[in-house]
Amino acid sequence: MTLIRIGGGKEINHDFILEDVAELAKNERVILVHGANFQRNELAQKLGIPVRLVTLSSGKECVFTDEAGIGVFLMSYAGLVNKRIVAKLQRLNVNAVGICGIDGKIWMGQRSENLLIREGSKTKLITGNFGGRVNKINPHLISLLLDNGYLPVICPPALSDEGEIINVDNDIAVALMAKEMDIKKIIFLIEAPGFLKNAEMENTIIRRIEKEKIDDYIQFAGGRMKKKLMGIKMALNAGVEKIYISDGRVKNPIKRALEGEGTIIC
Amino acid sequence: MTLIRIGGGKEINHDFILEDVAELAKNERVILVHGANFQRNELAQKLGIPVRLVTLSSGKECVFTDEAGIGVFLMSYAGLVNKRIVAKLQRLNVNAVGICGIDGKIWMGQRSENLLIREGSKTKLITGNFGGRVNKINPHLISLLLDNGYLPVICPPALSDEGEIINVDNDIAVALMAKEMDIKKIIFLIEAPGFLKNAEMENTIIRRIEKEKIDDYIQFAGGRMKKKLMGIKMALNAGVEKIYISDGRVKNPIKRALEGEGTIIC
Repeated sequence: MTLIRIGGGKEINHDFILEDVAELAKNERVILVHGANFQRNELAQKLGIPVRLVTLSSGKECVFTDEAGIGVFLMSYAGLVNKRIVAKLQRLNVNAVGICGIDGKIWMGQRSENLLIREGSKTKLITGNFGGRVNKINPHLISLLLDNGYLPVICPPALSDEGEIINVDNDIAVALMAKEMDIKKIIFLIEAPGFLKNAEMENTIIRRIEKEKIDDYIQFAGGRMKKKLMGIKMALNAGVEKIYISDGRVKNPIKRALEGEGTIIC
Repeated sequence: MTLIRIGGGKEINHDFILEDVAELAKNERVILVHGANFQRNELAQKLGIPVRLVTLSSGKECVFTDEAGIGVFLMSYAGLVNKRIVAKLQRLNVNAVGICGIDGKIWMGQRSENLLIREGSKTKLITGNFGGRVNKINPHLISLLLDNGYLPVICPPALSDEGEIINVDNDIAVALMAKEMDIKKIIFLIEAPGFLKNAEMENTIIRRIEKEKIDDYIQFAGGRMKKKLMGIKMALNAGVEKIYISDGRVKNPIKRALEGEGTIIC
């Protein structure tokens, strides 16, 4: 079973990716997990509900999501992008079903209602955040779909233990799914040819990372890539054997990833 | 098995409805089909993508949906409203799964790309419409969910035979589902106490309509109610035994409907 994690960047090419997914799905079970960061930001801007980035007291950046922000999240992730992916797969004769973390409670997590943030030299408590972290997977619905010939197309948000809708990080959920569902292979399709030593220079791609050395790379990765590598480390610890980070902008992105054009971690 | 059809009006109270759904679902299989007309119009207005109503050459009113309009449709129906309903049901310990007509190809239809419309005294052809009519139901995914203890929460859009996303009428899809899935009872929850002889006066409610006389009522119904009654006629012809039209704005709307507070057609 292969899990394909489609990034949410502007240049990610769904047509190219889904053509390859349709090929792959002829021979094995496939789960798709997608982002929609670009579409979320675009919608938020149009609606005048800006996505608010805050710096936690720990130094980490995170998005503060209020109730209006959850609405934008649902519309862009679970509505616009999820269903367009499903329709494209249906056109390619793949019987896809789009669900989010709330459906069948597949992604459960803990809400972080209050955030301690830095503003300049001050530390401040802000409340009313609908963000959190997935800490439990209910694989039943996903397995049911797979067992019956459907391809699950999954996206956030998740459900908190109190039944609230919460914005969560995709990559941690992916790692937990890998553990619960015995997934051996994950392909991350991003807006770069692979993991870059220098994020600004595409020719600094690192072709191969030994599982044991992942911490060395987490050190010098920045921002979103650091988060992704930390998710990847979790997935490796959960038993995933091979992880590919590859270019989601080009024709045949999955074939290329499997042929070793991007970064392979194993 | 009971199908609950939740209207898409502004005053429809999801909290009241879903509390009753949770009760009903303890004793029998329930399918929810919902609209989101109010939320769609509101979003369309905020995004500056007005919902365009046209008058067909036949005299019928219909919505012309271009590609941007389909985006608004996906966001409001399949994203915002569908997932908020699912989360509310999960809070009530009902294991709901939200899907739209595209998922698992449950609602297939024919696209009406070109529309012949009236503008003043002229007739005009407009093209590029992503609207259509459901003509085929694939019940497999819905049955699979029901058989495994999930409550399906379903909304448009549907998928055309060519794999396009199309805006369709909910009530025709409901009638076809009733036929395919041997549904014996349908409850329509709307923004009125039932079927009104005079749409402007809530005290003109008709308590009981004999199945055989439905045509008499179709005659003097206007606009959306005429469409609804035509869908109801289809459902009756498909073998549905009892149809309730009742108030979706009040506490305990389903209990009240079943106790005969609205209109019963049988």
